[in-house]
Formats: sequence, structure tokens, C-alpha cells
Amino acid sequence: MKRNLRARKFAFEETLMSRTILLVLVAAVAVWAPSVLLGKTSSSHSIQVANKTLVERLGYPADAKLLIVHADDLGLAHSVNAAAIKAFESGLVTSGSIMVPCPWLPEIAAYARTHAEADLGLHLTLTSEWKPYRWGPVLSKDRVASLLDDSGYFYLTESEAASHANVKEVEAEIRAQIDRARRFGINPTHLDSHMGTLYQNKALFEMFLRVARETKLPIRMSKEWFASTDYLPSILNPNDVVMDRIISIEPAVPAEGWAKFYTDSIRNMHPGVTEIISHLAYDDEEMRAATADHPDWGSAWRQRDLQFLTSDAFRKVLQENHIKLITWREIGKMQYPK
Amino acid sequence: MKRNLRARKFAFEETLMSRTILLVLVAAVAVWAPSVLLGKTSSSHSIQVANKTLVERLGYPADAKLLIVHADDLGLAHSVNAAAIKAFESGLVTSGSIMVPCPWLPEIAAYARTHAEADLGLHLTLTSEWKPYRWGPVLSKDRVASLLDDSGYFYLTESEAASHANVKEVEAEIRAQIDRARRFGINPTHLDSHMGTLYQNKALFEMFLRVARETKLPIRMSKEWFASTDYLPSILNPNDVVMDRIISIEPAVPAEGWAKFYTDSIRNMHPGVTEIISHLAYDDEEMRAATADHPDWGSAWRQRDLQFLTSDAFRKVLQENHIKLITWREIGKMQYPK
Repeated sequence: MKRNLRARKFAFEETLMSRTILLVLVAAVAVWAPSVLLGKTSSSHSIQVANKTLVERLGYPADAKLLIVHADDLGLAHSVNAAAIKAFESGLVTSGSIMVPCPWLPEIAAYARTHAEADLGLHLTLTSEWKPYRWGPVLSKDRVASLLDDSGYFYLTESEAASHANVKEVEAEIRAQIDRARRFGINPTHLDSHMGTLYQNKALFEMFLRVARETKLPIRMSKEWFASTDYLPSILNPNDVVMDRIISIEPAVPAEGWAKFYTDSIRNMHPGVTEIISHLAYDDEEMRAATADHPDWGSAWRQRDLQFLTSDAFRKVLQENHIKLITWREIGKMQYPK
Repeated sequence: MKRNLRARKFAFEETLMSRTILLVLVAAVAVWAPSVLLGKTSSSHSIQVANKTLVERLGYPADAKLLIVHADDLGLAHSVNAAAIKAFESGLVTSGSIMVPCPWLPEIAAYARTHAEADLGLHLTLTSEWKPYRWGPVLSKDRVASLLDDSGYFYLTESEAASHANVKEVEAEIRAQIDRARRFGINPTHLDSHMGTLYQNKALFEMFLRVARETKLPIRMSKEWFASTDYLPSILNPNDVVMDRIISIEPAVPAEGWAKFYTDSIRNMHPGVTEIISHLAYDDEEMRAATADHPDWGSAWRQRDLQFLTSDAFRKVLQENHIKLITWREIGKMQYPK
């Protein structure tokens, strides 16, 4: 996911947010009480869940500061795969998610097969945003006509994709992406959505949530998003997992502001589960060409993410602030115990 | 096209070849006489064609040494596109052909739209040979099931592709590639076949020839191939265009042998039409990763092609040997006059 989530535009002050979240959780429990009573979920489990924070559900003390450092867009380009693999080896980037329709999928799938410990999810993909270099669906094109632009690729933007999408076709395509990943030997630990397309409207998000629950995979959601959607709280159940906060650097941050942005973000972390969404790549010929007409989320911007998030400075600020790095695999095991 | 054509393994000595060609041309005229009599081609034009060499048909003196310097695999990767564009700018590489199913098609199509003079054909593609980085068909996958391997991409090799291919599906796919190129603003000057898949058997080649005639585009064929196929002469007609010779450097040539290979090839050119098939790319991260498990036709090998074929040494040997550079556009205008 590389776009601004609309939620962030409406970010509330922390205190106000906490109150909102409390109200939302109460509402969510009320909405889901009937299904609990009907035995759709274990009532004792639900009550237990409803009374605990995500940190506590994960077995940590309530004041723990847990962090997932996540690399999006794996499979997009060789430059992205190489950067992500380097970042995983640093131990500071804990997780990543893979774009199954992209042509460099086989390279990152080979890594997944030989690194079973790697925390790799799927970055479900319905857009193809770089004009010189594009891709299309996993399914036959005639089965997902609503997802394709005039040139036969996925749409360039998440808003075009969401506004044209037939939800049944999207469901078939994302199920096909999950199946294909598994056929390539990837055992995904979580799901998210490239450019946030699956979060663009209620119909898409409800379907996404249903597919995720059926496949028993956690999905990226943040409490902050509650402030900008009227539907999100109403469709959650107590077993769903919602991050307390997501951090993602914006294109507007100047190169010299990188260290400060991440350092301040870590220093300001509250107890809870936070995810840093990063976009790692090298500023090389391939990535420069792909992002040539796309100044935001470009190759130099991505290389700055790689440099800071694998640096000793980042390691130091994590240690100084007693940040515990976790993975989506931990969350999945808690959310869907075997 | 990057594989050895089987023809080259059976290359005949030049004198013997000339006699073979004469016999073949006589046979070809005999086979095609009925269609000439039925008015399918102009009889006076056919007789004229049968009596002239390709050089003469193109309006040059019989002893002219004409050369097309051709870059294959455009669209495959950014590295290939960038190298080809640099080579075109040198004026020494005259032509190239584009792989429509590959993800970097839009980049080279943008070049084609802004460089109407560029001599760009289509490198019809039915294989996807680099294991970490792959692609599939233009058509819906369910319409071309015979062209796809278990992973849903094109087969890795031309022999697998040809042995599984349903000819009707191949025809639909290559017509779709031609249509798609035109929708992208490419006005192709010629056709050839990536890895020679369409030359692998008579059924595929006959269909390819029929599609090329219908679309009025010349295709790559060499007289040398007559020695290794029993069907090729029998299906040609007098209006078809057959190169006198094709030159393509092999992976076995050591790096220090590059200049000698091309210099000797140019010095040994006889009158006639020759094509150098080259494979240009930079030895950069993208291309090294794509070709990592594929020592032949790799990134360093491709960069050597780029370096020599854009060099002053190449320019000099062309001048010294009175080589006239031509394009496929010239051939197409002669073969299919408006």
C-alpha cells in the first residue's frame, strides 16, 4: 500500500481518538452480540477478546510497545525484491507483502521457499500504477473485465479501480492471487491491499474481510481509520485485529528529514501495536525508469526508506525506546489458533 | 529470437548453398504457378520477382551488400529498451522488434509513438525464459491454455512451447499481439519470433506465414534455413522475402572475441541481404537478476553486443567494406507496395 489512506487526513488528537475507539469497541460488541449468542464465535473467547487490548491478546504486558516494520510491494520489480531481502537480513524490517500479479513474483517466491521463517503476506493487487511498466490480473482477462483499463492492464489508480470494480470479480481475483501464491510455495502470514484499493468502499472492504476470515489470515487495519469511515466499526467482530497506529512516511518529507521523521515516530510511540509501512527499493535504473513520471513514491524516496530502516540509527532508537519488534505471523497465530 | 536456429548447425558451404537455392526457387515457382494463374498474385510481378535477387528487387545493384542490424527482445526489460534506444541513436543499429506480452511494452511503445522513423517490428512471443521474471499471453488465459505451463506463464523453452501449442490458439495469440501493438501506436514494419518458436515445425510456420501475408508484413527467414527444413521451400511464394544470410553471435564466443567475430562477419559478407540479429542490454542489476540462472544470452553477453554494435570500430568496418545499412521498412514497401 503506498497511497495516503484517507484516514490520515482526518487524524484526531490522541486523547479524543482513545475516547472514539472506546465508543467504537462498545458498538462493535453490541453489533456482534447476536452472532456470539448464536455460537458463530466462542462467547467466552469474544468476551475475553473484548476486554483485552491487542497487546494483551498477543501475550505482552499492557504497556508494551510492539512494532511491525513492513515492506510493501514485493514482486513489483527486481529492485524492490533485492532491497526487501537486504532489509530482512538486517533484522530490522520484520515483514513484507507480495504482489502476486507482478512479473518478479517468481524471484520473491523462490526466496519465500528457501526462507520459511520470513514473515511474508500478500499485497493484493488491483492497480498497475507505473506508466512505462505494467501488469494485469492473475485470472483470465475476460473473467475480470471490470478490473482492466482500455489497455488491458489494471487501472493506474486505486480510485479508478474501485469505481469500476465488480465486487464479485474482485473477490475471484483476490482468491486467485491467494491460491497462486500458495502454488508458488508462499505460505502467507497476512493480507493487505496495494494502494489501499480494497479499503476504498464498504462493499470492497466487507468482501475483503470475509475472504480474510475464510482464509484465516489477518489483514491490515488501523484504529485511526475509524475516524474517516462510517462502516468500518460496524463490520468488525471482536476477533478481528486492528493496529493501534500505522506510520508511513509521505512524499513531502525532504531527504534530510528522513531520520527525524522515523526517530520522532518511534519516540512518540505509545503502548500498543504499531506498523511502519515502508516502500523499499534501490534508486537504480530499473526503478528510476518505472517511476520516471511518478515523482511521489519514486526510486530515490524508496532508497531513503531502505537506508534508514536498515541503519544503526534506527536500531539504536528502537533499543532506546524499548520497542519490541513483532511479526504478522504472531498476530495470525493469536487470531486463528490451530 | 535468441536461440540457435537449427539451420545454422547444418550450414552448407557457400557454393553448394547457391545451387540448392536455385533448385529451391525453381521448385517454389512450380508450386506456386497455380495460384499465379488464378490471379492470386500478379503473374508479371511473380515472373519479375523470380528472376531477380532480393537485392535487385530492392532496387540496388546486384553486387550490393545490404545489411540490417537488428535488436531483438525490445519490451522485455527496461535494460533492453534503454540499450536499444541508445543503439538506434548511434545510427548503426537500424531495426528492432518488440515483445508485446512483456511488462515494459508501454515504455518502448511510447518511444515508437514519438519516433515514427524508427524501424520497429514485432518479436512475436510465446515463451518466457527467465525463471525469476516471467510473463504470459495477451489473450485471456483460458483462450490459450495450450501455451501456458503449470504456473500460468508461457513455457520456458521454444521446444516445450511448440510441442504443446494448439496452432489455432497460437494464431489467435499472435493476431492479438499484432492488434495490441497497433492499439499502442506501434506501426510494425516486420514480424519475427522470439526464440524461433514459430519456426519449430511446419504447422506453426505455415500459419505464421499466412498471418504475415494477410497483415502485409515481411517476416524473418534465411536461405540458410532451407538446408535444415524439408517444408520451408515448398510453402514459399515468389513474393516472399528471404534473407541471404543471418549473423548471430553465439554464447560460446569469449568476451575478447567480440570484435573479431563481427569484423570477420562483415569482411566475409557477400553481395545480398544480410541481417545481424543482436540482443542488446546493459549489464545492470535488473538484467543480471533476470538472467541469473541462464548463463547464455546473459546480461554481460548482451552488453558486449551493445558496446560493439554502437562502436566506431563497427562503423569503420562497415564503411571499409562498403556495407549499405537498410531497414525492414524498405523490404516491406517493396514486398507489399501500396
